[in-house]
Amino acid sequence: MTNSNKLNLMQTVNYRLEEIVARFGGKILGDAEVLVSQVATLDSAQRDQIAFLANSKYRSQLEQTGAGAVIVSAADADATSIPRIVCENPYAYFARVSAFLNPPQSPVSGVHPSVVMGQHVKVGNGTQIDANVVIADGASIGANCIIMSGCTIGERVVIGDNARIYPRVVIYHDCLIGDNFIAHAGVVIGSDGFGLAMEAGRWLKIPQIGRVIIGNDVEVGANTTIDRGALDDTVIEDDVKLDNQIQIAHNVRIGAHTAIAGCVGIAGSATIGKYCRIGGSAGILGHLEIADYVEVSSFTLVNKSIKERGSYCGIFPFTSTQNWRRNAAQLRHLDELADRLKALEQKTESKDI
Amino acid sequence: MTNSNKLNLMQTVNYRLEEIVARFGGKILGDAEVLVSQVATLDSAQRDQIAFLANSKYRSQLEQTGAGAVIVSAADADATSIPRIVCENPYAYFARVSAFLNPPQSPVSGVHPSVVMGQHVKVGNGTQIDANVVIADGASIGANCIIMSGCTIGERVVIGDNARIYPRVVIYHDCLIGDNFIAHAGVVIGSDGFGLAMEAGRWLKIPQIGRVIIGNDVEVGANTTIDRGALDDTVIEDDVKLDNQIQIAHNVRIGAHTAIAGCVGIAGSATIGKYCRIGGSAGILGHLEIADYVEVSSFTLVNKSIKERGSYCGIFPFTSTQNWRRNAAQLRHLDELADRLKALEQKTESKDI
Amino acid sequence: MTNSNKLNLMQTVNYRLEEIVARFGGKILGDAEVLVSQVATLDSAQRDQIAFLANSKYRSQLEQTGAGAVIVSAADADATSIPRIVCENPYAYFARVSAFLNPPQSPVSGVHPSVVMGQHVKVGNGTQIDANVVIADGASIGANCIIMSGCTIGERVVIGDNARIYPRVVIYHDCLIGDNFIAHAGVVIGSDGFGLAMEAGRWLKIPQIGRVIIGNDVEVGANTTIDRGALDDTVIEDDVKLDNQIQIAHNVRIGAHTAIAGCVGIAGSATIGKYCRIGGSAGILGHLEIADYVEVSSFTLVNKSIKERGSYCGIFPFTSTQNWRRNAAQLRHLDELADRLKALEQKTESKDI
Repeated sequence: MTNSNKLNLMQTVNYRLEEIVARFGGKILGDAEVLVSQVATLDSAQRDQIAFLANSKYRSQLEQTGAGAVIVSAADADATSIPRIVCENPYAYFARVSAFLNPPQSPVSGVHPSVVMGQHVKVGNGTQIDANVVIADGASIGANCIIMSGCTIGERVVIGDNARIYPRVVIYHDCLIGDNFIAHAGVVIGSDGFGLAMEAGRWLKIPQIGRVIIGNDVEVGANTTIDRGALDDTVIEDDVKLDNQIQIAHNVRIGAHTAIAGCVGIAGSATIGKYCRIGGSAGILGHLEIADYVEVSSFTLVNKSIKERGSYCGIFPFTSTQNWRRNAAQLRHLDELADRLKALEQKTESKDI
Repeated sequence: MTNSNKLNLMQTVNYRLEEIVARFGGKILGDAEVLVSQVATLDSAQRDQIAFLANSKYRSQLEQTGAGAVIVSAADADATSIPRIVCENPYAYFARVSAFLNPPQSPVSGVHPSVVMGQHVKVGNGTQIDANVVIADGASIGANCIIMSGCTIGERVVIGDNARIYPRVVIYHDCLIGDNFIAHAGVVIGSDGFGLAMEAGRWLKIPQIGRVIIGNDVEVGANTTIDRGALDDTVIEDDVKLDNQIQIAHNVRIGAHTAIAGCVGIAGSATIGKYCRIGGSAGILGHLEIADYVEVSSFTLVNKSIKERGSYCGIFPFTSTQNWRRNAAQLRHLDELADRLKALEQKTESKDI
Repeated sequence: MTNSNKLNLMQTVNYRLEEIVARFGGKILGDAEVLVSQVATLDSAQRDQIAFLANSKYRSQLEQTGAGAVIVSAADADATSIPRIVCENPYAYFARVSAFLNPPQSPVSGVHPSVVMGQHVKVGNGTQIDANVVIADGASIGANCIIMSGCTIGERVVIGDNARIYPRVVIYHDCLIGDNFIAHAGVVIGSDGFGLAMEAGRWLKIPQIGRVIIGNDVEVGANTTIDRGALDDTVIEDDVKLDNQIQIAHNVRIGAHTAIAGCVGIAGSATIGKYCRIGGSAGILGHLEIADYVEVSSFTLVNKSIKERGSYCGIFPFTSTQNWRRNAAQLRHLDELADRLKALEQKTESKDI
């Protein structure tokens, strides 16, 4: 696992603001010689740390911050006298600075003696394979990967370069994965889809003979599951980001750059566009199509296709349980209530005449 | 893991339609000598593949398919001139043909040298136990099973014949499992139920001393969890099919042939009938009873017992976020709205007199 | 795994009611010499078992129970003639008796030869480390712990005394965990939070450099995931109890003694008070604050902060699918319906004048 933690004080290196700007652009206001060694929130930042203000709404936090420097947009450039980097997109700038100060652990090339390796396995240069990993026949792992302890890589799986696969990930046979893949602990890729046919009162299993195809730059959160296709493949396009405990059923296709929050369930053969954002615990029914640039709120079930970009929601507004009980009772009779209103309107109308 | 994948071209075998019908029944219309080697969707099928039409609604897909043969019902028998098998239940027929063309991997009898085996463990004939499996004292595994890498089988667990247990499944002590069991990667069976008693401001743990009892022909999807009973057992009857990431709490009983889609949560001591179908991300509260042949929609919470078979639903209909905001605001005052309507009705009524 | 199961008949020991009362308090009515060896439900209890009645509502079950003894409150003391222990909190009393009769397995001090141990690892006295566990450099594990098969403990992780960590748990680097920790199979602690910044149409990963800090007496259910903090830490306070398949995002704080049922999702930076109870499959949006002693119903999404203790709910009431269709259609026009009612009220009002 990475050792890029802020507690790892031995590796502390300090950079002057001007070094950071030389690397990532932006304009310095204030002392360009200020030294920073780590990123932090405005709230908790210390003298040797750099914080950021992504939203002018929180501008008041600048007043109390102990940060040695901050990253701000032009709009907030004058809101503080702390040494600051002014840039277009402070949050993205901060992401780059943080990645620079907290580089991911580099692989230490080599295969742990406990690894169980099948036949005809290819392992790229510089790749590190940790204890108790099992790699089946014909699998191929790219260069500069880290495959952490206890992972199982199935027959003929292909993984690109620079993968970082955390402990206990399972990838079933024949799945294809691009470069720069990150999978957190407990991820399962390529498990059988839920394909069943009822015959004479018993279920018959439909063999799941498709694969999972994953593009480049995909990250998958802890304990997320992605089923293989029934006949055709399940496809996750480039730069898709999946949070923890998401369930993706067989033959789903997720468009490039789409981000999906935790606990979402996506049913079979749903197609999701590019640049979508799906909120936590939302659901998408099977065989639907969702356009590009669609936002779905948390806890919303999408039960018909969405053809236009925009923001969609279907949350039951919570309230005190007492109040909920009264309103929920009415909800079961909403149709009747609408009918009564209509009758009353007609009655009133007729009297007018 | 199985190597029954369509990519595995070396194993391609061709069958004439008449050979398939000799095996599975049905009637051939058109050329009975047509050779097929794999199943496919109507959309993607090639000349050497057989597709199926389960629903007349999609009949138009027959026109463009490249399939060499199709499986259809009598109602669609004349909708195409492609060589076809006419049968009663095309989807089930297709399942059988697919299972024939894509047989599950046979176990290669033997125990990997890295397996850690307790005392008094029984392993049936023909069973394959892969690397890094840990089997505790007194466990018993049937014949012709495959226990894949990294599984942990607890003390005195009993597993029937023909099990296929994918990597990293954990089965806690004393659970009993029937024949033909399939458990996908990351499944946990027999973990402690959520049993707590509050005393003097602190939680006391209730020991969970029941077991999980699983019948024959049960399949459990990736990362699904089934808790052991608190005092009595948690029971999953024959031919129950569970998708991925389902949570089944202590003392639940699920009736035979019930199928449950992904991400469903079932609370403690709920009893679900036979032949039920529960949609994805639905929930069932504790101590409820659900009759046989009940269908619960996705995203629906069942918060009281269901005594009659039928289809039940409780989904908040999604809409544009803007529209949702307006309606959701009213929802908090629905009871008041109903009162106002009633008042108006009475007022209008009284004027009539 | 524990072998405290009721099937483990070899370990059966009998206790007289008076021995139990001597240990845990309460008052005996009836024969104090009755022997009990196990706890059970009123429904299934045998002569040598002790059952409990926690709720007077179920008093009628006393009539048919086969239990040799029961635990009751003063209010139910005269509802049966079965030998009984009368106490203030029968459920908590039962918990103590059950824990006494079903003690957790004691660790057998030692490290399995297959364990892969990093440098500078500390392991306390009496701790048992099972097969295929991987412990990284600088980790510290307390006394009398059991770390079961296949767990991965990251660099510099600190775990207190008496931990019981079931198979295949993964704890990422630098997390800190208190005493008496229980984590069920498949738990992931310290995985990266879902931190992304969009720049020029692509996602940038925000390094997640906080930790997970867990207090004393915390239990975490199977396949639950707890992400590390982005900059500051994710914090789980003392005596928090988490059920299975819960997702806790980065920088969440959960107050002491709070209990959360299965499948709940808690978004980033939410703060939950002490002594809260969150029902199954509920959700809590990011950056919210929830007061102490708040109860949230199952399936309820909390989408704004809750400042007062109490019970909150937002469940869509389920009904027959036919009825749901009619009502759901109206729900999309609720705002319009309210407007029409208002118009009618004004019209009727104006006529009165």
